[in-house]
Amino acid sequence: MHINKRKKHIRIRINMTNLILVKVLLVITIVFSGLANATGNEKVRWRLAETWGPNFPIFGDTTKNMAKLVKDLSNGRFIIRIDSANRHKSPLGIFDFVKAGQYQMGHSGSYYWKGKDFNTLFFTTIPFGMTTSEQNAWFYHGGGMELMRSVYDKYGIMSFPGGNTGNQMGGWFRKEINTVEDLKGLKMRIPGFAGEVLAKLGAKPTNIPSSELYTALERNTIDALEWVGPSLDLRMGFHKIAPYYYSGWHEPASELQYMVNQKAYDKLPRDLQVILVTAMRLSAYDMYTHSTHESSKNLAAIKQDYPNVKMLTFPKPVMDAIKAANDELLTEFANKDPKTREILDSIQTYQAQARAWTNFSDRAYLDSFSVK
Amino acid sequence: MHINKRKKHIRIRINMTNLILVKVLLVITIVFSGLANATGNEKVRWRLAETWGPNFPIFGDTTKNMAKLVKDLSNGRFIIRIDSANRHKSPLGIFDFVKAGQYQMGHSGSYYWKGKDFNTLFFTTIPFGMTTSEQNAWFYHGGGMELMRSVYDKYGIMSFPGGNTGNQMGGWFRKEINTVEDLKGLKMRIPGFAGEVLAKLGAKPTNIPSSELYTALERNTIDALEWVGPSLDLRMGFHKIAPYYYSGWHEPASELQYMVNQKAYDKLPRDLQVILVTAMRLSAYDMYTHSTHESSKNLAAIKQDYPNVKMLTFPKPVMDAIKAANDELLTEFANKDPKTREILDSIQTYQAQARAWTNFSDRAYLDSFSVK
Repeated sequence: MHINKRKKHIRIRINMTNLILVKVLLVITIVFSGLANATGNEKVRWRLAETWGPNFPIFGDTTKNMAKLVKDLSNGRFIIRIDSANRHKSPLGIFDFVKAGQYQMGHSGSYYWKGKDFNTLFFTTIPFGMTTSEQNAWFYHGGGMELMRSVYDKYGIMSFPGGNTGNQMGGWFRKEINTVEDLKGLKMRIPGFAGEVLAKLGAKPTNIPSSELYTALERNTIDALEWVGPSLDLRMGFHKIAPYYYSGWHEPASELQYMVNQKAYDKLPRDLQVILVTAMRLSAYDMYTHSTHESSKNLAAIKQDYPNVKMLTFPKPVMDAIKAANDELLTEFANKDPKTREILDSIQTYQAQARAWTNFSDRAYLDSFSVK
Repeated sequence: MHINKRKKHIRIRINMTNLILVKVLLVITIVFSGLANATGNEKVRWRLAETWGPNFPIFGDTTKNMAKLVKDLSNGRFIIRIDSANRHKSPLGIFDFVKAGQYQMGHSGSYYWKGKDFNTLFFTTIPFGMTTSEQNAWFYHGGGMELMRSVYDKYGIMSFPGGNTGNQMGGWFRKEINTVEDLKGLKMRIPGFAGEVLAKLGAKPTNIPSSELYTALERNTIDALEWVGPSLDLRMGFHKIAPYYYSGWHEPASELQYMVNQKAYDKLPRDLQVILVTAMRLSAYDMYTHSTHESSKNLAAIKQDYPNVKMLTFPKPVMDAIKAANDELLTEFANKDPKTREILDSIQTYQAQARAWTNFSDRAYLDSFSVK
C-alpha cells in the first residue's frame, strides 16, 4: 500500500513532467508554425489559360517563364499550371474564364475582347500608334495602367502588359503595291481594326484560321495576309509564295495581356501578390527582348535563303491614304463613347510628346549612319 | 531496499520518458527550423554602394526600386541598404568595394572601370553601337551576358545590366557645328571613348566635375559639353546658355551596371538569389521606361519654355568624319587584345543583324508618317 501510494505519487510526477514538456513542445510547434505561416509555407495553386496552343514560340515561353519565376521567387509556395488551347479548347474564352474565376489568370490579347467591351481594343496597340518603348512609358508613367484598370475593373479582372511582339509587319503580298488603286479589291487576311481601315480603301479584308493561311495564299483564295513579324512568320513559310514583305503600320507595338481574377488576387498573401505582379512584368519585358532577337535572326535567315523576297515600305501616297482612313475611323470611334475619347486622347497626347523624343533620339541616330 | 530499488527503477523510467520527449521536441524544433531556413526566415542584410549622390533622379530611383522589390519579394527577409556617394565618399570606388566584399553590391557604369580592365569599356554602350532594344537582345540572347561574365569573373564580381538612359544626346553647343573644321580646337567636356574620337578630329576634350559644368560653359572655359539627355539635362540648365542641342552618336544606349560580390551571392539561399537577380533585371528594364518618360516630358518642357533652343543633327560630312575616326579607334583597340577583338566582333556582328530588323521595323515605321 505504501509502496502503491508512492508509486501513484511518482506516476503523477511523471505525468506533470510530461505535461510541461508537452506544453513546451506545443508552444514551440505553434511558434514555428506561425513563422512558417508568416512566410506563407502553405502552397497556393493557380491555373492559367492561354490563347495559344502548346509550345507556341515566344508567347508560350513568356507564360512558362512567368510561372517558373513565380515558383522560384516563392520557393515553391506558389505554383501556376498553364493550360494551352489544346486543353481548355477555347482560345478566345480567356476573358470569360478569368471573369468567372474558372481560371485565376489568363494570357491573351486585350484587343480580342472588343466585342465584349469596345474600349479593351486600345490596350494592345493601335494603327499608327506608339512604339514599344513609348507605349511602356505610357503604361507605367503616362496613365495607361490607370485607364486600363478603369475599363477592366467592372469585370472583376485585373489586366497587365503581357509581352510585346515589337513592330508587326504590314504583311506578305503576292503582288507589289504601287498605288492606292492596287488596294481595291485586294483580298487580304487582316482582321479587326486594321481590316476596317483597309476596307475604307476598297480592300476585302477577311479572317482565316492560321492553319489554313498558307494554302489560302498559295491557291489565291487571298492575295495577301499579315501575321506577326519575322519572329513568328518564318515558320509559316509565307516567304516561299508571297515575295513582297511590307513594313508595318497597323500594329506598331502589340502588347499581349495577362488577366488576373481580382478576387483570387485579393486572397493571396501580400508577398505572393508582389511575386505575381513582378513575374508578369518581367516576363513581359523579356518577351520584347526575345521577340527582337528572334525577328533579327529570322529576318537574316529569310534574306539568306530567299534572296528573291523584297522588303518594302508602302509608297508614300499609299501610306498617306491608309493613315487618313485610320484617322477617320479613330474619330468615328471617339464620337461614339466618352470613354473611348478619353483613352484615345490620352494615347494621342502621350504619343505626340514621346514621338518628339524618339525622333530626336533613336530616329535621328538611326538616320545618321549606316551599319555595314 | 526493495522500495529504494523500485524508486530507482521508476526514476529511470521518468528520465527515459523525459529523454524521449526531449528527443521528440528536438526533432520537431529542428524540422521547423529547417522549414524556416528553407524559406530563409533568418534576415539577410546587404549594403549597396552607388556612384550617384543621394536622391539622384532616375539612377537613384532604380536602386531604391530594386531594394524595395527585394524586400517585398522576400517578405522582409532580405534587406539592402543603399549608400550613396555622400556616405561612402568614393563615387568611382564601387568596383573595389564590391571586389573586396566591403559592399556586397554596387550600382555604377561598366565603362568607368576601363583603367582597371580595358574590356569593361564595352558593356555600357559604344559610339555608333546598338540601340537599347538591340543591346538588351544582345545581352540576353546574343552572348553579351556570357562575354561580360568572362571579363568580370576574375575579379570575383558578377555584373548585370543596371538600367538604360536611352540614346544620349550629342551635347549642348554655344555655336552651331556646320563643318568638320568647326570641331578643330573646340573645347568640349566629353570624357572617355567619345572624347578620344573627337580628339582625332582636332577637338580638345576635357573632363570637368558636374558641379562646375554650368559655370565653365557660361564663362567660355568650354565651348560645349555632353551630359545625358533631356531626362537629366533639364535640371542642369544648359539650355539657357548653349542653344544648340545635338542628337547623339556616342552613347546610343548607356546601360548602367549592378555588381555583386560572387562570394556573398554564393552564400545566399537559392530563393534569395532568384529574388536578387529578378529585382535587378526588372529595375533595369524599368529604368529605361522611366528615362523614356522623363526625356519626353523634359524635351517638351525645353521646347515650350526655351523656343530659341535648336535641336539639330550634325551635318552628314561631320557625322561621317566622326564615324570614320571612331572606326579607326575601334580597330586600334581590337588590335591590342584578342579579348577586345572577341567582344567587338560579337557586338558588331550582332548589331548588323539586329539593325537590319530595326531598320525594317521601327525605323521604316517612324519614317512613314508624322505625328501631329
